[in-house]
Amino acid sequence: MKLWQKEISTNKQVDTFTVGQDREMDLFLASFDVLGSLAHTQMLESIGLLSAHDLALIQKELKNIYHQIEAGNFKIEDGVEDVHSQVEMLLTQKLGEAGKKIHSGRSRNDQVLVDLKLFFRNQIQEIVYSVDELFIILTQLAEIHKNKLMPGYTHLQIAMPSSFGLWFGAYAESLIDDLELMLAAYKICNKNPLGSAAGYGSSFPLNRTMTTNLLGFESLNYNVVYAQMGRGKTERILSQAMSSIAATLNKMAMDACLFMNQNFGFISFPDELTTGSSIMPHKKNPDVWELIRGRTNQLQALPNQIMLLTTNLPSGYHRDMQLQKETLFPAFQSLMACLDMSKLMLKNIKIKDNILDDSKYQYLFSVEEVNNLVLAGTPFREAYKKVGMDIEAGNFSGKYEINHTHEGSIGNLNLNEVKAMMKKVIENFDFATVDTALKNLIA
Amino acid sequence: MKLWQKEISTNKQVDTFTVGQDREMDLFLASFDVLGSLAHTQMLESIGLLSAHDLALIQKELKNIYHQIEAGNFKIEDGVEDVHSQVEMLLTQKLGEAGKKIHSGRSRNDQVLVDLKLFFRNQIQEIVYSVDELFIILTQLAEIHKNKLMPGYTHLQIAMPSSFGLWFGAYAESLIDDLELMLAAYKICNKNPLGSAAGYGSSFPLNRTMTTNLLGFESLNYNVVYAQMGRGKTERILSQAMSSIAATLNKMAMDACLFMNQNFGFISFPDELTTGSSIMPHKKNPDVWELIRGRTNQLQALPNQIMLLTTNLPSGYHRDMQLQKETLFPAFQSLMACLDMSKLMLKNIKIKDNILDDSKYQYLFSVEEVNNLVLAGTPFREAYKKVGMDIEAGNFSGKYEINHTHEGSIGNLNLNEVKAMMKKVIENFDFATVDTALKNLIA
Amino acid sequence: MKLWQKEISTNKQVDTFTVGQDREMDLFLASFDVLGSLAHTQMLESIGLLSAHDLALIQKELKNIYHQIEAGNFKIEDGVEDVHSQVEMLLTQKLGEAGKKIHSGRSRNDQVLVDLKLFFRNQIQEIVYSVDELFIILTQLAEIHKNKLMPGYTHLQIAMPSSFGLWFGAYAESLIDDLELMLAAYKICNKNPLGSAAGYGSSFPLNRTMTTNLLGFESLNYNVVYAQMGRGKTERILSQAMSSIAATLNKMAMDACLFMNQNFGFISFPDELTTGSSIMPHKKNPDVWELIRGRTNQLQALPNQIMLLTTNLPSGYHRDMQLQKETLFPAFQSLMACLDMSKLMLKNIKIKDNILDDSKYQYLFSVEEVNNLVLAGTPFREAYKKVGMDIEAGNFSGKYEINHTHEGSIGNLNLNEVKAMMKKVIENFDFATVDTALKNLIA
Amino acid sequence: MKLWQKEISTNKQVDTFTVGQDREMDLFLASFDVLGSLAHTQMLESIGLLSAHDLALIQKELKNIYHQIEAGNFKIEDGVEDVHSQVEMLLTQKLGEAGKKIHSGRSRNDQVLVDLKLFFRNQIQEIVYSVDELFIILTQLAEIHKNKLMPGYTHLQIAMPSSFGLWFGAYAESLIDDLELMLAAYKICNKNPLGSAAGYGSSFPLNRTMTTNLLGFESLNYNVVYAQMGRGKTERILSQAMSSIAATLNKMAMDACLFMNQNFGFISFPDELTTGSSIMPHKKNPDVWELIRGRTNQLQALPNQIMLLTTNLPSGYHRDMQLQKETLFPAFQSLMACLDMSKLMLKNIKIKDNILDDSKYQYLFSVEEVNNLVLAGTPFREAYKKVGMDIEAGNFSGKYEINHTHEGSIGNLNLNEVKAMMKKVIENFDFATVDTALKNLIA
Repeated sequence: MKLWQKEISTNKQVDTFTVGQDREMDLFLASFDVLGSLAHTQMLESIGLLSAHDLALIQKELKNIYHQIEAGNFKIEDGVEDVHSQVEMLLTQKLGEAGKKIHSGRSRNDQVLVDLKLFFRNQIQEIVYSVDELFIILTQLAEIHKNKLMPGYTHLQIAMPSSFGLWFGAYAESLIDDLELMLAAYKICNKNPLGSAAGYGSSFPLNRTMTTNLLGFESLNYNVVYAQMGRGKTERILSQAMSSIAATLNKMAMDACLFMNQNFGFISFPDELTTGSSIMPHKKNPDVWELIRGRTNQLQALPNQIMLLTTNLPSGYHRDMQLQKETLFPAFQSLMACLDMSKLMLKNIKIKDNILDDSKYQYLFSVEEVNNLVLAGTPFREAYKKVGMDIEAGNFSGKYEINHTHEGSIGNLNLNEVKAMMKKVIENFDFATVDTALKNLIA
Repeated sequence: MKLWQKEISTNKQVDTFTVGQDREMDLFLASFDVLGSLAHTQMLESIGLLSAHDLALIQKELKNIYHQIEAGNFKIEDGVEDVHSQVEMLLTQKLGEAGKKIHSGRSRNDQVLVDLKLFFRNQIQEIVYSVDELFIILTQLAEIHKNKLMPGYTHLQIAMPSSFGLWFGAYAESLIDDLELMLAAYKICNKNPLGSAAGYGSSFPLNRTMTTNLLGFESLNYNVVYAQMGRGKTERILSQAMSSIAATLNKMAMDACLFMNQNFGFISFPDELTTGSSIMPHKKNPDVWELIRGRTNQLQALPNQIMLLTTNLPSGYHRDMQLQKETLFPAFQSLMACLDMSKLMLKNIKIKDNILDDSKYQYLFSVEEVNNLVLAGTPFREAYKKVGMDIEAGNFSGKYEINHTHEGSIGNLNLNEVKAMMKKVIENFDFATVDTALKNLIA
Repeated sequence: MKLWQKEISTNKQVDTFTVGQDREMDLFLASFDVLGSLAHTQMLESIGLLSAHDLALIQKELKNIYHQIEAGNFKIEDGVEDVHSQVEMLLTQKLGEAGKKIHSGRSRNDQVLVDLKLFFRNQIQEIVYSVDELFIILTQLAEIHKNKLMPGYTHLQIAMPSSFGLWFGAYAESLIDDLELMLAAYKICNKNPLGSAAGYGSSFPLNRTMTTNLLGFESLNYNVVYAQMGRGKTERILSQAMSSIAATLNKMAMDACLFMNQNFGFISFPDELTTGSSIMPHKKNPDVWELIRGRTNQLQALPNQIMLLTTNLPSGYHRDMQLQKETLFPAFQSLMACLDMSKLMLKNIKIKDNILDDSKYQYLFSVEEVNNLVLAGTPFREAYKKVGMDIEAGNFSGKYEINHTHEGSIGNLNLNEVKAMMKKVIENFDFATVDTALKNLIA
Repeated sequence: MKLWQKEISTNKQVDTFTVGQDREMDLFLASFDVLGSLAHTQMLESIGLLSAHDLALIQKELKNIYHQIEAGNFKIEDGVEDVHSQVEMLLTQKLGEAGKKIHSGRSRNDQVLVDLKLFFRNQIQEIVYSVDELFIILTQLAEIHKNKLMPGYTHLQIAMPSSFGLWFGAYAESLIDDLELMLAAYKICNKNPLGSAAGYGSSFPLNRTMTTNLLGFESLNYNVVYAQMGRGKTERILSQAMSSIAATLNKMAMDACLFMNQNFGFISFPDELTTGSSIMPHKKNPDVWELIRGRTNQLQALPNQIMLLTTNLPSGYHRDMQLQKETLFPAFQSLMACLDMSKLMLKNIKIKDNILDDSKYQYLFSVEEVNNLVLAGTPFREAYKKVGMDIEAGNFSGKYEINHTHEGSIGNLNLNEVKAMMKKVIENFDFATVDTALKNLIA
């Protein structure tokens, strides 16, 4: 059964091709579809398009369906095209005529738009919480290991002294900027497209501000043509924000693989978190980090996939947009898995002691020596030349001491300031307002 | 002359390959490099690494160089590797020893990082102002043409009535969301990396908060390893924000090309803004819109270029990063040109009258008819079926009237609310604080 | 059970994350894994690493498993990591010790490499056959509709007369060049990596030429390090070849959507191949073409996904490579579906008669007029100026006749030459040799 | 002066925007534009559209221009839009009316198409020769260093013995497959689009087979609509082939950076091929390899840039296509520079002796031990378990001997077979035919 069916049966092959993975993907939207209908029907009643009696029946039944979904008892039946049809069918089976009325003043286009925005808002909330957990672990590790020195590399060449305090802290701070981008995505998701119908509005006197408030949106997509343009754009921006977290994890994973490599040998993980080889019995492979690295590359590829799908298309809905579901939805799970695995691995990381004792790191302290000369009055360029010549002549012996005190340096990680920064970013999301609105809607 | 030169001459071919387009690209950074040095040297004096006397000499000379740059009289000489070397050389020619001291407590790595952030901040300011101008034109056109109806398409099929008020207004509102993303990029650019040296900090007692304030940064990249990680990440996020504006212009350009096509024929432009053909004398080609469409695709490709350059690399500086200059810098000019040309074209747009009089648009009003039946009491699905059957039987005659009143619809564009939204986003950038800080620095 | 298990149970969460979609993806490889083992074991026996008796037992049982797979009766059991483990387990359950011996002289690395190459070779064969079918339909349609004129557009502006003969023929010829690229991918797939072990070869005296011949490969990846490098590279090149077919279908789909649009109205399709709208009863939406357009964009995104996954990684196997399965394998089905749907749609296409009778197309013949003047002796630039001025003055009246006779023009489509070109490209694949080899192997 | 100018002056800003970098880019096409005109005019004379007398004048003057270009004395003057206009202007200045006639039966569309194909064919030839030189160096190094063992890594973990013979040989063999892809690109470039006019053919009785032969093309793009579709497609396929060579160099560069890192320390380069640091005097940075890595990533990004530019566009010329010049043309120089620098670096590579003497590599030989047990009769899985347990118990002592003899292994690099493979691929390009044709044309 399709909503638009007009006595003509569609070619079966066409059906399979056009529905694609929509039945699977739409399950992610089910509870949000019901939330949208709860708000829409309250609004319909307020403008006289639904009787108070019908509204009461519909609200009760929609809440039933919502709880079914939450309990995992909802499915999209074979022959039912999508989640919107399934919910409407369930409603009509129970309520008859009244059930059919929920479609008034709404198109599947703005219905799916609002479902997507509600779903994305929810996924962002989960991602932000998970990122914050990872952030906390990283700042804790930075604090714990702040005195463990390691070589710092530039051009992959041994360069200057660094520390595991710096290393963990860097990834913590990186997540803050990632969340700034996610905040932009959130703001864009947090505007109500409902009431834009098929992208050109409706002759019904809809009260869009009312549904905006009921659904806890911060504002609305006013212009109905723009509301429709949000399809593709919202997904792209959200995937760009996800790609930024992914890029942070990708670099951390590459570092981890390198530092686990026996030529570096800085860190290790328990056997149960590494894997062996079918032919090389001595290996402890960093498969988890490699797959985080790989998955975060898949995530970084997402925005471009969406751009290719949407670029050069004129305004107005195109069916191509549907394919973004199967591109983007599984990516949420993939990102969450990468965050979870990163946390698991970091909680179990072991760091080698006294890494810098190895003679190959002796020149690490050459810059310290240059700076000491400068502090004693030698111009920098001359101090630099002197130390360089000492090294070439084999006369350099650095003192294995380090005294970095400025903001953000080895001896002064500013973790409290960094934590305050993260707190401030997360507060800007204002998840509480949304939670309250949705709780009221389903109450 | 290279800063790191140690009596050994480098292979000429290597020089050409490694310097690449850096001399051209670094010109964009010149004035910002001087600003960075003005702040850095004030700070050096405050911690006793520079005498008050030397500071006065250096500040005076740096300001001279700044004014030379502003006047267009600065160049990077042959044999000088980059902008940092050129500025230092000019300084040393004038001041001798004192000139050399500005490099204390700083590496080229954090010097270029701070140059980039200052440059990006400046470019964002220009982009935001230009986007705002385009926004104003679009809202004006929406107001002027709010009663000009046009067909709305879905699936590229004639669907429902739309208007040029909606069409212009949609692109205006799209720019607001684009600036939300740009705001995130701005926040990320507006943190001070200076003092991170080569990415591992320094043994000098640098006062990074002082340079943060002097340069008008909102905050700093605390962790020095993270400051270095900003290379690549900042560029990626900024290019993502640019790609969003680009995507908005891309869709507008595709619409314009389609609407100028004679089969649509909705809009036209004066001859001097279109081009002809070498073989087909009757053509009025939309080259400007085609090239906006093309250039915005180049801009959308940018983030992926940067991702490929940076992904899978471990932490720490890599020379690959340098190539981002030639990838990103010309993109600013390209985006500004696309914005300028869009403004020029839109200011000269002519819209055809009475587009909907053509008989092929008669079914546009079928949904209005469905809704009228619903307002008179027929359930939606039945009204829908009735109108569908009337159309199939050739009995449909829509009334060419439209009465859309809800928020964001043809009859209620909410332009004031949309303008207020834009104003609020732009205020968040707080450009005034930056302008004041830099004015003080160079005064 | 994992092959590399050493009494230590791996963290469950790690298992889920690292296995990922491998069980589903590996089903595509099952029959090819068995073919690889059939060849490998014959070779092992030839070099004395397997007794003739064991070989006979193993070959019989492998063929049983092969027929199970072909009959759809093969699955990878829960707790079994991948297809290689599953096949080995089945074998060992039946044969005990003998079953275990098939792993000698082989690593999972070269086992999956050879599986992939065999699978890709097979998929290419299916794609080529399907492309050829589409090619035949297109050339037939070109022949049938060679006299149906249509406007040709440049810059989306009405330009010169074209024909449906040209339009169909263009896409036919495009597929030939696409297959040139696919041929390169095929040649690269058609080299044997078996015997490269974990990417560094083996101390067993393997006869790699023998397995090359048994598996019908044209040649082998000699260098074992290079054989391993093929992972990622083979997938990238294959996906690039697939993206080229996709790009051809993408353009055809965009044309189809545009030509079905009522402002063009050149072509139409039966109701059962189009879809309606939930709110606009008069629509005939080109969903199939839109989804072909969208899916072919997903396919065009593939090579970049693989590049991001593989770039900047040093040589040697990395677990990231595994993720290419889930990126690439479903793409084969997607491409086949796009080809199938294109064929279905084209078989049912209806073309409007007398398109050019519409007055908006009158200037189409202006170039013909210019050329007539030239043939009568006027220099081109003057003829061009004269016709241009006639048009501007409203004095132009083209003759609705067309007489294009040169190679590849409206009146001379060269379909026989084009068909011969296609035949020649397909012959270069030499699928027969492969078919024969595999038939012998499984006989 | 523009060819299509009709007394109406175009807006200056429009001019700047639409011409863009075309004047610079078109210089690459100049000599090929003349070659195309030499062939086109011979053909015009053969079909009576040009007198023998005019032809002689034109040919003489075109050859003059050709030699000017070769001598570096050609420029596109200010106010002249492109190379086609410049050549025609020079011709007309000398020959008056006769000069104007060369435009008969040709549009700028097919003129630039043929210029591009001739230019690309030429660039491919240069690339292939350069790749072959790199191939020769790599095979020589493989031969020279075939006995120098190194650790082989999987998962970046020390895995099995490898050798520099294998390492160099792997990259050599990789280039062969890259050239298979380049051969496909070459075949696609080697078809003549001339005579397709603006993409819809011409009413002149052009002899396209004649120009095909004169220009040394293997065949022609028959269908004129397809000939036009080649724009964008040819560039995409060529850039894909270039990206494959780039990917090979990218991996080699990453290996080189890693192996130069002091934790590995396998290879080194003379001081004049590395760079130092402004603050760390002891560094020898692998800038050249880093920039090869970065540039090859830019090259890998190319195909996607072209896809974004072209996807979702309907058939027929669009001005967007012009932007491919500035995307692709500089990439040829970049690829050639990467090839040149790779050769320079490899010619100067120094390889450390006795790398495997370091105790951290002792487990490298564990697989050898497993295999020895197998050769002595132990089933593989048991041998594997035994060695694994010996290692865990600290009882493993591998024998530092290696005896790999199979095809492509450490002891049997098959360099002659690999060289024969390369020779065969290069012969397929058949550059000689093209060289001869062009020599005749310009003689």
